[in-house]
Amino acid sequence: MERSAINTYIEQNKERVLNELLDLLKIPSISADSKYKPDILKTAEAVKQRLIEAGADKVEISPSKGNPVVYAEKIIDPAKPTIIVYGHYDVQPADPINLWHSPPFEPVIKKTDIHPEGAIFARGACDDKGQMYMHVKAFELMMKTNTLPCNVKFMIEGEEEVGSPSLGPWIIENKERLKGDVILISDTSIIANDTPSIDVGLRGLAYMEVEVVGPNRDLHSGVYGGAVANPINVLCKLIADCHDENKHITIPGFYEDVMELSAEARAEIAKAPFNLDEYKKDLAVGDVMGEKGYSSIERTGIRPTLDVNGIWGGYIGEGAKTVLPSKAFAKISMRLVPNQNSHKISELFQKYFESVAPKSVRVKVTAHHGGEPVVVSTESVGYKSASMAMEETYGKKPIPTFGGGSIPIVALFKKELGLDSILFGFGLDSDALHSPNEHYGLVNYYKGIETIPLFYRNFTQLSGK
Amino acid sequence: MERSAINTYIEQNKERVLNELLDLLKIPSISADSKYKPDILKTAEAVKQRLIEAGADKVEISPSKGNPVVYAEKIIDPAKPTIIVYGHYDVQPADPINLWHSPPFEPVIKKTDIHPEGAIFARGACDDKGQMYMHVKAFELMMKTNTLPCNVKFMIEGEEEVGSPSLGPWIIENKERLKGDVILISDTSIIANDTPSIDVGLRGLAYMEVEVVGPNRDLHSGVYGGAVANPINVLCKLIADCHDENKHITIPGFYEDVMELSAEARAEIAKAPFNLDEYKKDLAVGDVMGEKGYSSIERTGIRPTLDVNGIWGGYIGEGAKTVLPSKAFAKISMRLVPNQNSHKISELFQKYFESVAPKSVRVKVTAHHGGEPVVVSTESVGYKSASMAMEETYGKKPIPTFGGGSIPIVALFKKELGLDSILFGFGLDSDALHSPNEHYGLVNYYKGIETIPLFYRNFTQLSGK
Repeated sequence: MERSAINTYIEQNKERVLNELLDLLKIPSISADSKYKPDILKTAEAVKQRLIEAGADKVEISPSKGNPVVYAEKIIDPAKPTIIVYGHYDVQPADPINLWHSPPFEPVIKKTDIHPEGAIFARGACDDKGQMYMHVKAFELMMKTNTLPCNVKFMIEGEEEVGSPSLGPWIIENKERLKGDVILISDTSIIANDTPSIDVGLRGLAYMEVEVVGPNRDLHSGVYGGAVANPINVLCKLIADCHDENKHITIPGFYEDVMELSAEARAEIAKAPFNLDEYKKDLAVGDVMGEKGYSSIERTGIRPTLDVNGIWGGYIGEGAKTVLPSKAFAKISMRLVPNQNSHKISELFQKYFESVAPKSVRVKVTAHHGGEPVVVSTESVGYKSASMAMEETYGKKPIPTFGGGSIPIVALFKKELGLDSILFGFGLDSDALHSPNEHYGLVNYYKGIETIPLFYRNFTQLSGK
Repeated sequence: MERSAINTYIEQNKERVLNELLDLLKIPSISADSKYKPDILKTAEAVKQRLIEAGADKVEISPSKGNPVVYAEKIIDPAKPTIIVYGHYDVQPADPINLWHSPPFEPVIKKTDIHPEGAIFARGACDDKGQMYMHVKAFELMMKTNTLPCNVKFMIEGEEEVGSPSLGPWIIENKERLKGDVILISDTSIIANDTPSIDVGLRGLAYMEVEVVGPNRDLHSGVYGGAVANPINVLCKLIADCHDENKHITIPGFYEDVMELSAEARAEIAKAPFNLDEYKKDLAVGDVMGEKGYSSIERTGIRPTLDVNGIWGGYIGEGAKTVLPSKAFAKISMRLVPNQNSHKISELFQKYFESVAPKSVRVKVTAHHGGEPVVVSTESVGYKSASMAMEETYGKKPIPTFGGGSIPIVALFKKELGLDSILFGFGLDSDALHSPNEHYGLVNYYKGIETIPLFYRNFTQLSGK
């Protein structure tokens, strides 16, 4: 496989390769909201068609307990290694819509300072349609140039943004056909377009819904205020008490299983370029804030956290209403690091909240989907294949990083299929994932399509098969 | 004026007197939401017509900077005292609508344990249309039986639920025709239908809107969580820190102007019947919660408080979204007692919040309408007239109480017109003011119409005019 042949193919098919992605982005495949189910199915169908056109076999929309999984494969030689490509065709909700400069499902290409050659602006542009589709096009490229060096299987699901609840059962049911040697995933970021990196650690996730109920009905805050516990005030205290003055989480037992890194490991991590002033300026904050004793990179990479993702209660409409509300709610999630376990943490959280809640309210805590933290060895064949591929197309060796985000199914793949996942992402942190005006650089998109075939080549060679 | 004559008139006109109120209740005169302006004007027009029919003169819908004031008068003899009746024809918003057992603007009469003879269920049934309309019917009664002993003026406004922003300027503009001797208001409650009471103290109100801004955009909580201050977490801490462990408010200077009551005064207040077990059972709470060292009655009557009336931020829709939001908001109000001043408290609050906010966020605090606390002397002619009137129709001397709610304009009347307000209310705390399923007992409604003419008689006699 020659890089010039790869680049020629990309050049000749540049426009179509982009337009197909733009078409995918137009479908609002929002998994968090059941009213978009028809769009979910429409997107799965589109991905299926593109895989068929790329040359895959046994392409099917495989049913699950929830949204279907698009499966496809190309077996050229059972003796060769098998790469399993994972991605997801569902996207995050787009709200608040009024903060988007262009409609979230009407992709436009705009030039920016970070992307002078242009970026695609749409929900899902990076997470994950843009990155997932690079793999479909890289596969097509290898098929059309007859350079596919090993076997490949595609597993593109539709529930990642809601925690992939149906994927576990689907994998167990399909274990036979999911035999392979490594999982390849593009759903993370590089440090910068001139500084490639590969995530070797992903934080886990525990996501909790909390409901605090005070009086059995909304009350007049004049008649009752001062005598009756206000569930909003109580909820605020419960949340505030989750951190001490050093921003250390106070939930008993929370840090018990946290693997502290060695001084050497921390020194490696510190090599990643990071400019605090620019970081603050980019976010327009007066200061950063986090756990005492750790740098910003460490706080987002190797330390567990607790964030309130949403809070509501009482009157939130126009004007003033002097109500002492009956209920208050919060969505609270914790990012976890090895070797914390999401079920154990969810239980600790629930036990803690219920134990510290005052007798004047009733607290109900339920757990959403969780995900386990994960670490990949830089000595593995998969990591080396990815590292060498990026070194070739970027001209620089990628830095191993600890990404802050969670991809819960990575631990699932290890558990059910015994396979490592290589986090081979090409996005940027500034792509505004999960936020308004999400985008993906054209340079990044094409770079991924260019680099992925080199991973296939390296992996086949290093596997010695 | 004979009680039997009063009761005969009420009996003979019972149904019409009720139906006219039900018609008023059908109009959704919600002042907090500008889309109901047509209904506001429609209600004002209806009140005007009823006053004309009752026999008043100079009835007009008097324009203001906002919703109009319905003015009317009957001057029988300039040498006689003049009672000015204040009420409001606007109502609270009705949400959450789904918690109402019958539509908020389709009044129905239902029997309940507390109201075995029936209560009117509708938004505004008690606050304030039911109570305000008792005065219109009492006036009609005195006019039709030719027993009106003194002069009367009506001032029925349409913005009380949003803090009466236009009333001050309207009063100043109409000062000439608002000369009088006392303001009579029915917008408070008695302890129970067999335990009359008169509010001698109203708490003031300071209402604040707080906005906390962290990063300049919503962020992915995996990529940024732990390194960047989450405005929801920060807001929760700011709110939680407003109280210490004794539920004493921590804002510096907050209690400076609070008039501590004497032991004797506190003993008087303690005479009001109060059953803690029933209070907790009625609200279905495991315990009450409030400032250490004070009883529940004192906590709602003579102590200032801080309550969060509404809080929101981040993702509050269906399912999970792992966002670290850019902003968080809260509506926070404080009930004040003599001699606290709402402007001073608003400033203290704003200064405090801005000073304790960490450098990693920007806090914006704005003040809504406020209202001053007020106290009426039990030695005054107005109080005695009301007390004697209730003693006659209830068979018991009313207990002087410190109501928890605020009627901000009472301080305004003192300041601009030099007049005391007699809080002559006939509702019950269980009437669910500001809540779903607000109601007003038929017994209470007719009792008010029966008692008000006795106030007029007593006031005229005691004024010696």
